[in-house]
Amino acid sequence: MLLSWCPEKELFMPELNFADRLLAAVEAKKSPLVVGLDPSYAQLPAAITGQRSLNDESDTTVAVDAVTEFCNKVLKLVAPHVAAVKINSAFFEQYYWDGVEAFSNIVQEANAHGLIVINDAKRGDIGNTAERYATATLADPGFANLDELVGPDAVTVNPYMGADSVLPFVKTAGEFGKGIFVLVRTSNPGAAEIQDQVLQNGTPLYMHVGKLVEKWGESLIGQRGYSSVGAVVGATNPAQLAELRAALPKTILLVPGYGAQGGTAQDIARAFNADHSGAIVNASRSVIYAYKEAKYAELPWEKAIEQAAIAAKQELAAAAGM
Amino acid sequence: MLLSWCPEKELFMPELNFADRLLAAVEAKKSPLVVGLDPSYAQLPAAITGQRSLNDESDTTVAVDAVTEFCNKVLKLVAPHVAAVKINSAFFEQYYWDGVEAFSNIVQEANAHGLIVINDAKRGDIGNTAERYATATLADPGFANLDELVGPDAVTVNPYMGADSVLPFVKTAGEFGKGIFVLVRTSNPGAAEIQDQVLQNGTPLYMHVGKLVEKWGESLIGQRGYSSVGAVVGATNPAQLAELRAALPKTILLVPGYGAQGGTAQDIARAFNADHSGAIVNASRSVIYAYKEAKYAELPWEKAIEQAAIAAKQELAAAAGM
Repeated sequence: MLLSWCPEKELFMPELNFADRLLAAVEAKKSPLVVGLDPSYAQLPAAITGQRSLNDESDTTVAVDAVTEFCNKVLKLVAPHVAAVKINSAFFEQYYWDGVEAFSNIVQEANAHGLIVINDAKRGDIGNTAERYATATLADPGFANLDELVGPDAVTVNPYMGADSVLPFVKTAGEFGKGIFVLVRTSNPGAAEIQDQVLQNGTPLYMHVGKLVEKWGESLIGQRGYSSVGAVVGATNPAQLAELRAALPKTILLVPGYGAQGGTAQDIARAFNADHSGAIVNASRSVIYAYKEAKYAELPWEKAIEQAAIAAKQELAAAAGM
Repeated sequence: MLLSWCPEKELFMPELNFADRLLAAVEAKKSPLVVGLDPSYAQLPAAITGQRSLNDESDTTVAVDAVTEFCNKVLKLVAPHVAAVKINSAFFEQYYWDGVEAFSNIVQEANAHGLIVINDAKRGDIGNTAERYATATLADPGFANLDELVGPDAVTVNPYMGADSVLPFVKTAGEFGKGIFVLVRTSNPGAAEIQDQVLQNGTPLYMHVGKLVEKWGESLIGQRGYSSVGAVVGATNPAQLAELRAALPKTILLVPGYGAQGGTAQDIARAFNADHSGAIVNASRSVIYAYKEAKYAELPWEKAIEQAAIAAKQELAAAAGM
């Protein structure tokens, strides 16, 4: 995190707000692609799991070592082609404290590659608890024994509990020059039975939440006019994606559902504003497990991941009109 | 976890479903009280923090040791007076992997006292990720190096992403004889701006979600007629509490908001069915920090916690008509 002296506040402050940093990184790499790391031991290449003394998940250390080796290789492969990576916290939490430590190690590695890191943790709780989650999932660690470590650059947040569950994350984001992405319309089938419910005034719940997100983000607008408070809006319902894009002009959309979940590049095009910015698009399984796909079957596994990342980057940059 | 041989399935199965275990424990202790552990280093008694070589939170190990000592003492003090404890995951996650390991240690200690443990983690994500969260937050660890450990008995789940984000937790709960509590109407002020929104058919969102919870719980109904899929419904809005109690007859309510958040015993009475069961009531800060209250100021800190737990237990048992 770059800091500069702010004479008004008599504090070292983050030099750029998160939204500005993210947009600059997307433009520098000419890539709206975010690669999602959801590493599952059972899906890893034999070249990685085969070196282990156990060939199943019966020991956390073995699993965590393999997952870490895999993620570090993926980071190196995709770093030239993406601005950001999204790390799925659950896939590390499943290995208990060993997994949580590995998560932090991978954040450090991504940071060393100059990548922006989104912690996909989907936290949300009442005020005094949300402060603790913001510390755990977003802040740079403030403990003497961890003070060499950086935290992620952004975290995903669940809005079901309302403003007092989200604003502590906004506050921490502001203090550390970081960002959040609030769930608005997610890409999964079950989202419809909650988020698509229509309120008495005719507004669908996702739009009601989306407008709250735009409001919550007002305090963190950067020089480019976008807020560091973004929204998660899936690619699986293109009409909703277009509707939310138009209604939330200052909100950066983090778009899941491209690739393995079925969203096409044509669908994705609706996520971008006329200035060709305002969205980043996640692909997880379709990139990190590309070596399992028929079209990459002839390639070594690293090459398959690299090719899939390049193909996704090119398709998404074209969709954005970059 | 007690297991018994099920000849139909040719498996050892949990002997009692979670709802039955919980109701039996509430009756055995004559206490609907759940004590919530939200331990904050800065709030701990000087008798605990004063022994440490540091008197602030500058090192995770120091903070985690103090928090663990405190929680273990609280568990011993409240065990005779409560059926269950609710451990707030965020207060451990804030200490990174050391905190996550401490969380598990405290789960083991609570289990050794015969207490039912609710992991207040409020997780929720799409299907394949929800499976990982269910492993991390609810299952008994399945790794060779952790196989002496038990997981919590229940976990809180956020419903914003719909059925496919909740059902993996229901599945894991069923496999391990455990339970979940889904957020329906939370006790915090911000809950209103999402959960109280009224849908076009006149149903408030909290009731729409509540009815989904009752449906999701149908596969885990115990011998007493209650499901192992419960609902979180706050005490801070008594009319809503009564409305949800009536609408969800098979759902055990986990009621926060009593004590420090302002809900009274009279409000709480509405959480119980005519059989005097169907609800458990959480008190966190008003019990674990009782030594900070004027009325207990003369007592040693352990005695203050014990007295506060007994007073809350008696008030709640009376409210329930037990």
